[in-house]
Amino acid sequence: MRNPPALEQLVESLRCLPGVGPKSALRMAYHLLQRDRSGANGLAQALHNALQVVTHCSLCNTFSEDIVCPLCAADNRDPTLLCVVEMPTDLMMLEQTRVFQGRYFVLMGKLSPLDGIGPKEIHLEKLLKRAQDGVVEEVVLATNYTVEGEATAHYISELLRSRGLKVSRIARGLPMGGEIEHVDSGTLAQALMERRSVR
Amino acid sequence: MRNPPALEQLVESLRCLPGVGPKSALRMAYHLLQRDRSGANGLAQALHNALQVVTHCSLCNTFSEDIVCPLCAADNRDPTLLCVVEMPTDLMMLEQTRVFQGRYFVLMGKLSPLDGIGPKEIHLEKLLKRAQDGVVEEVVLATNYTVEGEATAHYISELLRSRGLKVSRIARGLPMGGEIEHVDSGTLAQALMERRSVR
Ligand SMILES: [Zn+2]
Ligand SMILES: [Zn+2]
Repeated sequence: MRNPPALEQLVESLRCLPGVGPKSALRMAYHLLQRDRSGANGLAQALHNALQVVTHCSLCNTFSEDIVCPLCAADNRDPTLLCVVEMPTDLMMLEQTRVFQGRYFVLMGKLSPLDGIGPKEIHLEKLLKRAQDGVVEEVVLATNYTVEGEATAHYISELLRSRGLKVSRIARGLPMGGEIEHVDSGTLAQALMERRSVR
Repeated sequence: MRNPPALEQLVESLRCLPGVGPKSALRMAYHLLQRDRSGANGLAQALHNALQVVTHCSLCNTFSEDIVCPLCAADNRDPTLLCVVEMPTDLMMLEQTRVFQGRYFVLMGKLSPLDGIGPKEIHLEKLLKRAQDGVVEEVVLATNYTVEGEATAHYISELLRSRGLKVSRIARGLPMGGEIEHVDSGTLAQALMERRSVR
């Protein structure tokens, strides 16, 4: 006696979600079919819709429904400053400090050779093109102060400085091993203002 | 600066999954859109398909794609014995013992007044009708030996005995607070064989 095929398929499909193992996938499937069919329907539609309309901003690479995202399209930002972050969440955290008035580039990840995430996966060619638009003067590296974030910053700084761009790094106001997403806004503002040139 | 609407909608929709809070919903959405679009597509289709085809067996109430599930349709089971379980997982665990040769009824839950789960939510009217088919002679209560499982068994036994049905309860071979899903097959077989009449 097994679950019906369509239910087994749902359990299997739920496992594509990070952190969801066989037991919790089964629990989720039961819950959806038994107690929240409208939620399940909403999720199916949200997935379908997001896959259709969410792409990446052609300039900053963040998630966007438009070719150019609202922030890149804004005309009140300093185009000579380009801040590089790992994830959209980091961008939003930095925006909350209201200290940075430049533009962004979102890597959508960090270098992580063991997970098969190399320069291509974090879109460094797109970053190179973006940083060399002739207007950008300084690239501010705001990757996390984790081992991988540091390695990513190092790699990018070598890449950009060899092309004559000025590169800076947000100050180590963050605690060791700290992640931007989890730090308070004041510390983050300090780290931005005290950014240092990469030698 | 916020995430695009379709992404926000996806994050919100993922929260219908049990145990998924705002942070993990965001992490899941990023992961799907960034690293596993085919997984996301598969999940959307699996949800859609499961909602379309998975219903409940008209006899035993378990998840089924047919009006009568394979186990209820089998002709080699004793129709005089009806075993009541909380969830399909419990049914499958009991089947693995190969001790029980009767039929099942799956409550799809347990009485839990604080969560708004009363007699109607666990389909007791359907159980009453099923147990009074004129063929069933004994109802074996195999709900968990948790507080709620015990209360459910008590409630059902009152209901059925007042209608002249013989009711038994699987033996307390399970440890206190134990759940059928997590017990070994031998203990479960023992509990089935030593089921006692409810007085
Ligand atoms: Zn953009
Ligand atoms: Zn059935």
